[in-house]
Amino acid sequence: MQIGVVGLGRMGGNIVRRLTRAGHDCVVYDANPAPGAALAKEGATAAQSLAAVVKALTPPRTVWVMLPAGKITEDTIAELAGMMQPGDVVIDGGNTNFKDDVRRGKELASKGIKYLDVGTSGGVWGLARGYCLMIGGDTEVVNRLDPIFSALAPGLGSIERTEGREQLDARAERGYIHAGPVGAGHFVKMIHNGIEYGMMQAFAEGFDIMRNRASEKLPADERFDLNLADIAEVWRRGSVVTSWLLDLTASALAKDAKLEQFSGHVEDSGEGRWTIEAAIEEAVPADVLAASLFVRFRSRQQHTFAEKVLSAMRLGFGGHVEAPKK
Amino acid sequence: MQIGVVGLGRMGGNIVRRLTRAGHDCVVYDANPAPGAALAKEGATAAQSLAAVVKALTPPRTVWVMLPAGKITEDTIAELAGMMQPGDVVIDGGNTNFKDDVRRGKELASKGIKYLDVGTSGGVWGLARGYCLMIGGDTEVVNRLDPIFSALAPGLGSIERTEGREQLDARAERGYIHAGPVGAGHFVKMIHNGIEYGMMQAFAEGFDIMRNRASEKLPADERFDLNLADIAEVWRRGSVVTSWLLDLTASALAKDAKLEQFSGHVEDSGEGRWTIEAAIEEAVPADVLAASLFVRFRSRQQHTFAEKVLSAMRLGFGGHVEAPKK
Amino acid sequence: MQIGVVGLGRMGGNIVRRLTRAGHDCVVYDANPAPGAALAKEGATAAQSLAAVVKALTPPRTVWVMLPAGKITEDTIAELAGMMQPGDVVIDGGNTNFKDDVRRGKELASKGIKYLDVGTSGGVWGLARGYCLMIGGDTEVVNRLDPIFSALAPGLGSIERTEGREQLDARAERGYIHAGPVGAGHFVKMIHNGIEYGMMQAFAEGFDIMRNRASEKLPADERFDLNLADIAEVWRRGSVVTSWLLDLTASALAKDAKLEQFSGHVEDSGEGRWTIEAAIEEAVPADVLAASLFVRFRSRQQHTFAEKVLSAMRLGFGGHVEAPKK
Amino acid sequence: MQIGVVGLGRMGGNIVRRLTRAGHDCVVYDANPAPGAALAKEGATAAQSLAAVVKALTPPRTVWVMLPAGKITEDTIAELAGMMQPGDVVIDGGNTNFKDDVRRGKELASKGIKYLDVGTSGGVWGLARGYCLMIGGDTEVVNRLDPIFSALAPGLGSIERTEGREQLDARAERGYIHAGPVGAGHFVKMIHNGIEYGMMQAFAEGFDIMRNRASEKLPADERFDLNLADIAEVWRRGSVVTSWLLDLTASALAKDAKLEQFSGHVEDSGEGRWTIEAAIEEAVPADVLAASLFVRFRSRQQHTFAEKVLSAMRLGFGGHVEAPKK
Repeated sequence: MQIGVVGLGRMGGNIVRRLTRAGHDCVVYDANPAPGAALAKEGATAAQSLAAVVKALTPPRTVWVMLPAGKITEDTIAELAGMMQPGDVVIDGGNTNFKDDVRRGKELASKGIKYLDVGTSGGVWGLARGYCLMIGGDTEVVNRLDPIFSALAPGLGSIERTEGREQLDARAERGYIHAGPVGAGHFVKMIHNGIEYGMMQAFAEGFDIMRNRASEKLPADERFDLNLADIAEVWRRGSVVTSWLLDLTASALAKDAKLEQFSGHVEDSGEGRWTIEAAIEEAVPADVLAASLFVRFRSRQQHTFAEKVLSAMRLGFGGHVEAPKK
Repeated sequence: MQIGVVGLGRMGGNIVRRLTRAGHDCVVYDANPAPGAALAKEGATAAQSLAAVVKALTPPRTVWVMLPAGKITEDTIAELAGMMQPGDVVIDGGNTNFKDDVRRGKELASKGIKYLDVGTSGGVWGLARGYCLMIGGDTEVVNRLDPIFSALAPGLGSIERTEGREQLDARAERGYIHAGPVGAGHFVKMIHNGIEYGMMQAFAEGFDIMRNRASEKLPADERFDLNLADIAEVWRRGSVVTSWLLDLTASALAKDAKLEQFSGHVEDSGEGRWTIEAAIEEAVPADVLAASLFVRFRSRQQHTFAEKVLSAMRLGFGGHVEAPKK
Repeated sequence: MQIGVVGLGRMGGNIVRRLTRAGHDCVVYDANPAPGAALAKEGATAAQSLAAVVKALTPPRTVWVMLPAGKITEDTIAELAGMMQPGDVVIDGGNTNFKDDVRRGKELASKGIKYLDVGTSGGVWGLARGYCLMIGGDTEVVNRLDPIFSALAPGLGSIERTEGREQLDARAERGYIHAGPVGAGHFVKMIHNGIEYGMMQAFAEGFDIMRNRASEKLPADERFDLNLADIAEVWRRGSVVTSWLLDLTASALAKDAKLEQFSGHVEDSGEGRWTIEAAIEEAVPADVLAASLFVRFRSRQQHTFAEKVLSAMRLGFGGHVEAPKK
Repeated sequence: MQIGVVGLGRMGGNIVRRLTRAGHDCVVYDANPAPGAALAKEGATAAQSLAAVVKALTPPRTVWVMLPAGKITEDTIAELAGMMQPGDVVIDGGNTNFKDDVRRGKELASKGIKYLDVGTSGGVWGLARGYCLMIGGDTEVVNRLDPIFSALAPGLGSIERTEGREQLDARAERGYIHAGPVGAGHFVKMIHNGIEYGMMQAFAEGFDIMRNRASEKLPADERFDLNLADIAEVWRRGSVVTSWLLDLTASALAKDAKLEQFSGHVEDSGEGRWTIEAAIEEAVPADVLAASLFVRFRSRQQHTFAEKVLSAMRLGFGGHVEAPKK
C-alpha cells in the first residue's frame, strides 16, 4: 500500500524501513532532510514538505505521523488536515494522551477525515522484532489498513501460542489489535507503559536489596556479597520473573555489575503520569504504579522540600539535629 | 550420583523424576507412602523411614529435604543430622528463611555435617522446564554435587544468550548459581519472590484500570470496553512487558476474560514478607514490594479496622455518614 | 456589611449564623425554602430567588455561593453573573477545583465582575470554632471584604501564639489568609484536605495494627489485648501525635472501641484526588497522600479485579488454588 | 517515693527534675558524672556507680533505666539484676523493642525481679508539659508505683475532656496508661512513633506540593507563590489538620520559610521499622507507615542502586540516555 510517514526519528525511520522491506510504498518527510535522503536509498520516496507528501499520495490517503506527543504532533496534524480531503486517514503513532485523541478525532471527523491512534511499542528493537501495535479508530479504516499493521507487527514468530486462543482474534497473536474507538489505542499503550514502570521498579528494588546485602552494618553471617550479573542470568532460566526486562538487566549487569555509568537520574514520560490519572478517574487503587512514578520524581532531586519539613519537625519536638547529607 | 530425597509432594516428586531421568540414583521417602511407591515404578528406591534413607546411602551421603518451611523441615533436618556422620550433606530445597539457614548451618557444622540451602524456582512447570536453582553453602560441597544441580537446572535451552557473558560463570546460563555461603541461596530466592510480587501487582493494577474503563461513570467518549485477552496476547509480541507472568495472564484471560472463578482472596508466603524485613534491615526503600504485599493482606479481609477509624473521624469532623458497603 | 449567601446547607446556614451574630446583614437563598425561613428568624433576610438576592443588595454587591462543587455551583455563578454588574463580587466558598476557579475568574473578569475562591474548613464545628479561610483573588477585593472574613474566622482564641510571627501577616493568626490570585485559595484548601487524608490514614493504620495485636495467630507472650479508647486518650496529653483528629478518634473510641456502627466503606472527595494530580503536574513525590486515597478506593469494593489477576497468575505458575474469601 | 534513675541524658535528667519537684526522692547515676552533680543541686542524690544506686535504695527497690535502646540498656539491666533481690523493680523507660522486653521480663521474673516497660513520649518538652506514659507489666507493680507515673504525666491540664469517658480509666486522661503485660507499653509507644512518621510525611508532602507550585514549568495562571508560614499558621485555627506537629511546622516556617538550615537528610529510629514488622506479622496493610519510613531511607542517599537499574533498562529497551543528576 501507499502511505505517507511524517517524522523520521529512530521510531519513524525504522517504521519506514520495515514497511519498505514488506513492499509498501512510503512517501516520507522530516523537518530535517537527512533521514529522508537516507531512506530514499532504501526504497522510500523523500518529500520536501508536508504539502509534498499529501500531493504525492493518491486518495484516499494515509499519513502516519510519528512525532513527539504535544505541540508538534498537534500542529502537524492540523496542517495535514487542512490539505487532506474526506476519506483520507491520519494516523498518530506517537505517545499522545488518549484524551487528545478523542478531541482530535472529533475535530477531524467534522471534516470527514478519519483518525487512528496507534500505540506503538518496540523502541530500538522494533525494526528487527517488529512493533506491537494497539490501534484505536473506526473498524472500516482499521481493516482497510490491515496490510500496513500486519507488516509492522512482529507476527507469530517463535513464541509459543497461548492455548485456547483458537477462536479469538488472530491479529493479537500476530502482534496488533484493534483496541476500540479513537483513543483506545493510546489508552492501552498508556497502561502498557504504566505496567512497565511497575515491573521495572520491582526489579530495581530487588536488585537494590541484594546489592546492599554486602553492607558492613549487617551481622557478618547474614551479609552476602552477591554476584548480581549471575543472579539476573540464572533467573532467565526457569524462574517466575523471566521477562524481556530481565534480559536487558542481565545484559547490562554482565557489562558492569555496578552500573557505574548511570547517575541514578531517571526520566518519566507522560504515560506513567496519565496512567495514575486514569486510575484516579476510575477510583481504582494503583499503589504500585504510583509508587514507581514517584521514585522517578524523587530520583531527579538532590533532596526534597518534604524532607526538610521532616527535619524541621524533628528538631522541634525532639531536638534532633540531622547529620548532613553525605 | 546417589541422593536421598525426603518430601515427595509436587516439588519433591518432580525433582526425583528429573534426577532419575538424568540417571541419578534416588532413595526417596515421604510420611505418606503413596508418592514413594509411584516413584519406585519410575526408577527410584522407596525407603520406609528417614533412618532407612540414611542407611541406604553410601557416605558421604547427600539428602535433599523438600518440605514446607518451618517446624517440619526443622524437625526432619534435626532427625537426619542425628543419624548422619561428618562429611554428609543436608540440602534444604524448601522456602526457608535465610536466617534459619544461617543458624542451622552453624549447628550442623558443629557436628561436621555440611548444609546447603537451595532456593528452587519452577513450580508446576519444573519437571518440563527444569528448576532454577540458587545455592548457598561451601564451595567444595557445591562443586561436588554439581551433577545433581546440573541435572535439575533448565540448561541453555533455546533462550538467547546474553552478550558479554563469555568470561562469566557458565552455570548461571545453565540455570543454577552458587550464590554464596549458607543462607545466600534462600536469600536470592526470597528476593526473586519479592520481585515476583511486585511484577504481578504491576500487571494486576494495569488490567484493573483497563477493565474499569468501561464504567458508565466515565464520559461516553472516554469509555472503552477493552478486550483484555487480546491485550494480554498482543503484549506478548514486541512489547516491553513481555514476560512469563504475562504469558500466564494471557492464558487465563483467553479462558475467561472476567476471571470469574477467582474470589479475589490472595495468599502470601513468607518470602514476600521477609523481603521487606531485609529491605528495612538494610535501610533500602522498597515501596513497590511492600505495597504488593499489603494488597494481599487487604484482599483477605471484608474490611479493615483502619477503614472504620477513617469513617469515625469523618463522622466526627464533617458529620459524614458513610454509605453501607455494597 | 451586606452580603448575599446562596446555598443554606449545613455549611452555608452556619456561615450565615456566624455572620449575622457578628452584625453583618445577610440576604439568603436556597432552592429549598425551609433553611432560609429558619435563618430569617435569626436575623437574616430570606430571598425567594437568585434574582431577589441580587436585587436586595446594594452595589457593589457580594454574593457568597456555598454549594456542592460542580454543575450546580457552575450554573448558579453563571446565572448570578448574568444579573450582576461591574464591581460586584462572587465568592465561591465550596470545594471547587482550583483550575475551574482560574477559568471562571477569567470569564467573570471579562464582565468586570470580581471572583474570589475561599477554601473553607470547619465542618460541623465551624459555627462554634469559626472557619479557617484560605482566600484567592484580587488584593483590593480581599481587603474590602475583610470584615466578612474576620467575622467568620476563629480569631486568636486560646491557642498559643507562634513565636516569631510578630512581623508576619496577622490575619493568619486570626484564622484567614489571602493565599494569592484566583485559584490559590482553593489550591491551599485542596492541599489541606490531601494532608488530612494522610494524617487520617496514619492513625487508621496504627490503630489497626494495635487492634490486630490480640490475634491468636501471634505467640501468646507477644499478643496484647489493647484498650484503644484509653490509648487514644493518653496520646492527647503530652504525645507527639496530639491533634484534633486524635481528639475525634478518642471520642469515637470512648463510645464504642470496636467502631461497630461503621461498615468500613469510606468515601473520598475531589480534593484528595486533585492533590495527587497537582503533585504529578509538579513531579513531586506524594507516596503517602496517594496511598491514603487508594485505601479509600479499595474500601468501597468487595474485591478488585486486580486481586483476581493475581490469583490467576498464582494458579498458572504454582498451581495455587486460593481459599475462598471469608 | 524513693526511686533510682540511671541514665541522665536529656530525657533522664528531666524525668529526675520532674520527680524531684513533685517531692520524690531520686538516687541518680550516669557514666558521666556531670549531670548527676547538677541534679544533686536540684535535690537528687547522686550515686557514683550502679552498685551505689542499688545500695542507696530501700527494698523493694525501683530503678528507672533511661538509656539508649540496645546493648547499653541490656547490659545495665543485667548488671542491676545481679545486685537486686526478689520484689525489686526495674523500669526500662527507653525505646526498647517490645520483643526484647518480653524476653527480658521472663529472665528477670525467674529471679523474682519485676520488670516494667514504659514508653515515654515528651522529648524536649516533657519537663514542662509532662510525659505521656505507656506502661507494660504486672498490675500490682504498676499500681504500687502510681505516684511516680502520676507525677511524670501531664495531668488533665487545660485540654478539653473527651465526652463519654466518665466511666473509663481516669489515668488515660491524666496522661498515663497501663497498656497490658510486659512489652505492651513499648508496643503502644512503638505504634505512636509509627503514626508520628505517617503524620509528619503527610504534612511534608503537602508543603512540598505547595512549595513547588511556584515552578515556572506550570502554566502562569495555575502557578502560585504561596506563603508557607502563613498557611501553616492559618491551619492552626479551625482546620482539620490542627495538631502539635503543625504547631512545630508553623514555628519553623515562621523563622525560615525555605528551611534552608536543613539538609534534607532524615534519620529514622527503631520504632518506625518495628511498626512495619509488627504490621507484617499481623498481616495488616500499612501502606502509609511503610512509605513514610522508605522516604527517610531514601533521603540519606545521593542516589539508589535501584535508580541505576531503571536507567540501565531504559537504555536497553529504548536507547534512552539519562541526563546527569543535577
